[in-house]
Amino acid sequence: MAIAEILCVGTELLLGDVLDTNSQFLARELAVLGIDCYYRVVVGDNPERIKSALRQALGRSDIVITSGGLGPTADDLTTECIADVFASPMVVDPETLAFIEELFRSRNLVMPPSNRKQAMRPQGADILPNPVGSAPGIIWPIGKEALQKAAIASEYVAQDSVNAPYRVILTFPGVPGELKAMWSETAGPYLAKHYPSGTIWSKELKHIGIGESALAEKFSHLLELSNPTVAPYAGRWECRLRVSAKAATREEARLAAQPVIDEIRSGSGVTLYGEDDDTLESVVANLLVSNGKTISLAESCTGGLITERLTDLPGSSRFMHSAVVAYSNEAKEKFLGVDQSVINKYGAVSEEVAVAMGKGILAASESDLALAVTGIAGPGGGTEDKPVGLVYVALVASVSPGKEPLSFVRKLLLGSRINRSEVRYRTANEALNMVRLFLLEPSSL
Amino acid sequence: MAIAEILCVGTELLLGDVLDTNSQFLARELAVLGIDCYYRVVVGDNPERIKSALRQALGRSDIVITSGGLGPTADDLTTECIADVFASPMVVDPETLAFIEELFRSRNLVMPPSNRKQAMRPQGADILPNPVGSAPGIIWPIGKEALQKAAIASEYVAQDSVNAPYRVILTFPGVPGELKAMWSETAGPYLAKHYPSGTIWSKELKHIGIGESALAEKFSHLLELSNPTVAPYAGRWECRLRVSAKAATREEARLAAQPVIDEIRSGSGVTLYGEDDDTLESVVANLLVSNGKTISLAESCTGGLITERLTDLPGSSRFMHSAVVAYSNEAKEKFLGVDQSVINKYGAVSEEVAVAMGKGILAASESDLALAVTGIAGPGGGTEDKPVGLVYVALVASVSPGKEPLSFVRKLLLGSRINRSEVRYRTANEALNMVRLFLLEPSSL
Repeated sequence: MAIAEILCVGTELLLGDVLDTNSQFLARELAVLGIDCYYRVVVGDNPERIKSALRQALGRSDIVITSGGLGPTADDLTTECIADVFASPMVVDPETLAFIEELFRSRNLVMPPSNRKQAMRPQGADILPNPVGSAPGIIWPIGKEALQKAAIASEYVAQDSVNAPYRVILTFPGVPGELKAMWSETAGPYLAKHYPSGTIWSKELKHIGIGESALAEKFSHLLELSNPTVAPYAGRWECRLRVSAKAATREEARLAAQPVIDEIRSGSGVTLYGEDDDTLESVVANLLVSNGKTISLAESCTGGLITERLTDLPGSSRFMHSAVVAYSNEAKEKFLGVDQSVINKYGAVSEEVAVAMGKGILAASESDLALAVTGIAGPGGGTEDKPVGLVYVALVASVSPGKEPLSFVRKLLLGSRINRSEVRYRTANEALNMVRLFLLEPSSL
Repeated sequence: MAIAEILCVGTELLLGDVLDTNSQFLARELAVLGIDCYYRVVVGDNPERIKSALRQALGRSDIVITSGGLGPTADDLTTECIADVFASPMVVDPETLAFIEELFRSRNLVMPPSNRKQAMRPQGADILPNPVGSAPGIIWPIGKEALQKAAIASEYVAQDSVNAPYRVILTFPGVPGELKAMWSETAGPYLAKHYPSGTIWSKELKHIGIGESALAEKFSHLLELSNPTVAPYAGRWECRLRVSAKAATREEARLAAQPVIDEIRSGSGVTLYGEDDDTLESVVANLLVSNGKTISLAESCTGGLITERLTDLPGSSRFMHSAVVAYSNEAKEKFLGVDQSVINKYGAVSEEVAVAMGKGILAASESDLALAVTGIAGPGGGTEDKPVGLVYVALVASVSPGKEPLSFVRKLLLGSRINRSEVRYRTANEALNMVRLFLLEPSSL
């Protein structure tokens, strides 16, 4: 099994200005490829320490992956340090230079001279293309002789393989979106091809409406398995079980995991909402489309968050009709036709107003479903009767023309210990889940 | 200045199952104390690699801080490995044992035998108390002789100080809440007392409407300073300059940084939008409130994102009137009064429709300002004439009753290389920035 080492470069990481999420992404991807990772090292923008960490990593790992230090400024030093370790000159890559110039041109900008630096690579290294930004990385296979010539102390002997180079260096910029795109397009497939070791296959089973410990207890007998393994994780107002199996091939691993996945599926009921890259909003969107339903929203305390999550999905115009964010009482009347007398009688945060908002947007938009939210997200605005964290969510569904629509209301008491953003996010989850349950199994609402 | 090294222990970190947030916390706290951090290393639950990383860290840093590996199970090895490096026996700490037993009793639980392990410390080490959990850490000052006896290769000679030990090891559990509590109660004060070096004070100056490399070139003479230092960073469609100064006290550091901050401020013009924790939306919100203006929104391709960002701020009801997410042409007509003939003539994605949407929501809401967005976020929906990434943003401002409002339009060509979420996010930044510029300096629009 090949060994990889992750080297993150950036003083901002050592100062704590930036949270390192790249390492987690890389670690997961390596695990999927069945490549071990024994060390992860973070160094600042200091050439001596970068080179020292590089030499150590090359001495003990097959694959060295760096993140950061590829920008256009003088403190971006990763590529130069790598070239320096192997005493290789830096050369301009004409294709990359043309690409970066074109990138600036397409944005109606002139390329600043400093960006020319990003088109340089050590002689002998290949370019690792960056499909979304101006900083490409390199892929540089290193032979045994080059390692010896660079006087790198190596106790570790790389596995004999016709496929794999003795060592390989891959560099990525620190911007997470760019690193991920470069991994999926080039680096991941490269490593899968050259280091075809056994592999880990895993699936996440995502739950809502059950806590992590309750989920762990429900499937406690599975948590003790060794292959496949089952591990519970808490997410953001949801939780998941990760099933992982190791085997020689992905297909064998998948087959080994299947019975456990089936057992979790059949034992979960409606709390299991999706898998892997599914999100609550993508699951709701798919259900809306497959049922041929459209939806409209009337949001107060969530301020557009539910609409934003649903419309972030490509193709959302197929199910999304319109949405009104009605913060003020006037807006609730004007756009949603909520009678001021209802607001005066029950208060803006009430079951009655939530339902009236839902019926209002349903009528105005002529969509099939409407979701309405009114509540107190805090930190201010709470009273003894109506504390911060009190939220009403109404789901209103048209039945047939001329008939009164169906209404379902959920009252949430989220407490004042979570902040405004979390009250909003959790409310959005509960509201989306109501739509999911309505389309899937209305009796569970 | 003292040098610290952070060593994180845990296979879950190397597998990417857990996002390491402890390192960021520790890094920030060390920076505040004026303690440098040159390396951060992550290793799995493997005794040989833990010991190897410990020996290396002790060879090159004054202070070694570990996180993780203090739990009760067999794969929690940090303390044992430290004892092993110095060939020191593990002894039971009676006070800690009593504390852990009491902790379980107070939760009506019987202490499992495995937790006894957590009351062990290497002979010679002090306990670093854990006020919130069962796993205490250790504080272990190490003399020069002990280091030599352990045959630790050390090129680094600790600073001479009557206060500080030659080396010191501090261990923490991996649970973030426990680590933080132990830091604030004991470890932080200990380090502040024994390593009374200077401190770092820093400020971030956040820019929009200028790229990282252009910003770096504009202030290139400042990037070469050594104290204070100035470093550019790219953010999400914005960028920032971080000014950091080191001095004996925070106040001296702040004063040393001030002239550089003033120079950046006066040289930046309108691209400088805020500092430190400011966000574009918080700056816009403050400007709206201080100018006594209210705003309404009509969003199409951004799908509520701008509204969501503005309403995520506490107190947003002071300036936010209402918002309509008008995905369909019918919704644009129904809620915003956009004439179908305008849509038919110019297309839904056009300057004319953007302005009509803005005027529509302005009239309906009677707010002072309105922001309207229409565009093609992709991935589908683009044509040769109107490609993915084409967005029109209109800012409409009421002048006085009966008078035609002012309109400003910006056409964005964001290209198809960035994904839907990024088109939306960047559009939201541009739109918010238009409001900022209008309130600050309308001539710059």
